[in-house]
Amino acid sequence: MKNQSEKTVKLRKDAEKIFRAGLAAVEPGAAIHKFCRRSNDTLHIGNKNYELSRFDRIHVIGAGKAAAPMATAIEEILGDKISDGVINVKYGYVSKPGKIKVIEAGHPVPDQNGKDGTESIMDIAESAGKNDLVICLISGGGSALLPLPAKGITLKDKQDTIKVLLSCGASIDEINSIRKHISRIKGGMLARTVYPAALVSLILSDVVGDDLDVIASGPSVPDSSTYEDCIEIIRHYEISDRLPEIVYSHICKGASGLISETPKPGDPVFEKTVDLIIGSNMEAILSAKKKAEGLGYNTIILSSMIEGETKHVARVHAAIAKEIRKTGNPLPAPACILSGGETTVTLTGNGRGGRNQEFSLAAAMDISRDKDIVVFSAGTDGTDGPTDAAGAVADTKTVKRALEKNADPRTFLSNNDSYNFFRVIDDLVFTGPTNTNVMDLRIILVA
Amino acid sequence: MKNQSEKTVKLRKDAEKIFRAGLAAVEPGAAIHKFCRRSNDTLHIGNKNYELSRFDRIHVIGAGKAAAPMATAIEEILGDKISDGVINVKYGYVSKPGKIKVIEAGHPVPDQNGKDGTESIMDIAESAGKNDLVICLISGGGSALLPLPAKGITLKDKQDTIKVLLSCGASIDEINSIRKHISRIKGGMLARTVYPAALVSLILSDVVGDDLDVIASGPSVPDSSTYEDCIEIIRHYEISDRLPEIVYSHICKGASGLISETPKPGDPVFEKTVDLIIGSNMEAILSAKKKAEGLGYNTIILSSMIEGETKHVARVHAAIAKEIRKTGNPLPAPACILSGGETTVTLTGNGRGGRNQEFSLAAAMDISRDKDIVVFSAGTDGTDGPTDAAGAVADTKTVKRALEKNADPRTFLSNNDSYNFFRVIDDLVFTGPTNTNVMDLRIILVA
Repeated sequence: MKNQSEKTVKLRKDAEKIFRAGLAAVEPGAAIHKFCRRSNDTLHIGNKNYELSRFDRIHVIGAGKAAAPMATAIEEILGDKISDGVINVKYGYVSKPGKIKVIEAGHPVPDQNGKDGTESIMDIAESAGKNDLVICLISGGGSALLPLPAKGITLKDKQDTIKVLLSCGASIDEINSIRKHISRIKGGMLARTVYPAALVSLILSDVVGDDLDVIASGPSVPDSSTYEDCIEIIRHYEISDRLPEIVYSHICKGASGLISETPKPGDPVFEKTVDLIIGSNMEAILSAKKKAEGLGYNTIILSSMIEGETKHVARVHAAIAKEIRKTGNPLPAPACILSGGETTVTLTGNGRGGRNQEFSLAAAMDISRDKDIVVFSAGTDGTDGPTDAAGAVADTKTVKRALEKNADPRTFLSNNDSYNFFRVIDDLVFTGPTNTNVMDLRIILVA
Repeated sequence: MKNQSEKTVKLRKDAEKIFRAGLAAVEPGAAIHKFCRRSNDTLHIGNKNYELSRFDRIHVIGAGKAAAPMATAIEEILGDKISDGVINVKYGYVSKPGKIKVIEAGHPVPDQNGKDGTESIMDIAESAGKNDLVICLISGGGSALLPLPAKGITLKDKQDTIKVLLSCGASIDEINSIRKHISRIKGGMLARTVYPAALVSLILSDVVGDDLDVIASGPSVPDSSTYEDCIEIIRHYEISDRLPEIVYSHICKGASGLISETPKPGDPVFEKTVDLIIGSNMEAILSAKKKAEGLGYNTIILSSMIEGETKHVARVHAAIAKEIRKTGNPLPAPACILSGGETTVTLTGNGRGGRNQEFSLAAAMDISRDKDIVVFSAGTDGTDGPTDAAGAVADTKTVKRALEKNADPRTFLSNNDSYNFFRVIDDLVFTGPTNTNVMDLRIILVA
């Protein structure tokens, strides 16, 4: 038996229930069914209605780790109304075969399968006429699973380009600007190809802030960056000599007007596009919140956009929990703090762990002088770093229990060995693969 | 003119007003007068009443950077009822002379003046009889300004001990346990000396969480640590050879029962002690909250106990501000987020700056794609790190304005050069010395 108060035992059970409720809201099939409904000839997508009989054909395309269950759900809704379809998924992420062809491809490193699949997807987009509807299913991993470099550029050129940009310290926005300008599908290029058919993108967001132009590098949305911007970035970081020659010359040609720009805001190709986020970190948080309220907790959503170094982010969460205990701010106990997003771990050791396990470990150290606080952090995809755990749960006695087993939390934290820390005290959280990914979910309960 | 929207201009003005309101609540004199009142023969301290005529003598002792204005306020209240008094203050932190003797001493490194002053303070404590009242004024710096090592131990021995403990990775709790066991005034030893006189400690807390046994190393409160614990710490870190011989032998004697323990919880010497926190980070936050509400903001107190690496703590605050803008969580705009505590800065560069300036710089980078958010962070003592600024203010255009002046925020942040960053765009916050210190105050406004 663990040395836990009755209250803590209940908090731990509640935290898991709240997490499960969050997960349920972003299960890909459930998310599709929540936003897409069919009644006879009418397809309701979000707050839009489509008369199916007005379309000559309906095509389904897409990519991402959750694309297969999303496609299954779309087939459940549209059945034989679907003319054809191709989606790219990560190796092993397939579902039972239907009308939509599922192509397994490389992730996170794109491969030839991915490129071949993306060409099939673009063939469908190209074939769609003005009385057609194209439904595009996008989820985490969509960018790597939709590799289609501009003419003459190989997958290797593209990877080398990203490596150069990462090593010179370019920001994620800068990297995305260049990525979009050396692709035939990203940065709104898919929308241009689909046009004049109608394009509805159903998106499961794995990106902090849910920016449509960032998710899968924005194949269906306007690109506000330009070839000129790319030249500026290359100049600023002085990397013209380090980029693959074909990439640099492509961008120079684009900036000289020899290659047409990605479609910009206001471009007519976006007149018939709709982008709908059907699952996101906030969707999971809102569902978790409802559950927490049902369990009797005063609940606060801190933010779905939390970033930063995990152990310090954890300290801020712990400080809020301690303040709840001490003064009832920002809300009175019994309280549930919810937050999401994706933090980072800067490795200083060679242990095993993940963001969520490290979060719970760091928080455990800060709450160890308090009582009846539970910290639960887990990845919604069911995997946390290179481990088989989704995350870990901690309470105010976690440090004490670990010390009794000669596990010093400071040593494990500085060695980034949160997995083995929580294994010692049997507090890892396992969910198995969830088929979804809307980043991480953190639940802090104060009795 | 700065490139600021009307809304942002108002937010910036409001943030400063809210900060000033927070400061006003913890001005040492104001704080004393708020908690101590006299009506004829009755002295009201907190919710306790003292009949002055029942005391033979009233003594005033104390130490800390704010002790002088606290003493002035006590003299304003008690006047010639005060028999005698001695306080230790940091060099230069004096006020106009009164009945209470003010001794200037070394801080943060204790010196002979501090030791002499502490001996005078202990003489008063010793002289107090059972019909006397001793009022003890404690504020930030009190620990260094009350140096009185145990017999045979020099100030240098004590400093060497702390250095060894810091370098071996001992926790702050462990350091405090040893500190209390090599002192004649800390860890409740003052209370033992004052007994059987009544002892009222009025405390301006500069410590995260306001733990009474941590503030000035708890001269008036029970010490739950023991000489045995000290031996355990020395064993754990294997530092018996590295500690000054006199310190190690003192602790061994204590553990063998040859030297009496510090007074423990339940010890009769605490029967007549009262400890009252008259100023704290939370007091400042509550006053700031009232002001923010008066200015029309929905207000949330995140925590007064925020710790962790500044730039990551800043990112969490920025994420909350962005969530307010995006979804109205955790509260709808116009919103004011308040937080306090004391973060750390791990130096990676050789620039100039402080916690608060670095906080505002890191937050500015995360809100630069948003609008009408203002981040204000400043130290309540009016100084932030080794600079003449108290902190800095940032808004969503801060990064843009800096880039226009060729100041790249990333470069300044990685060089810990927040002071020069904000100097370029004229956004440093100056207050001059405030005579108080309840750590830092952070105000984030979202219009």
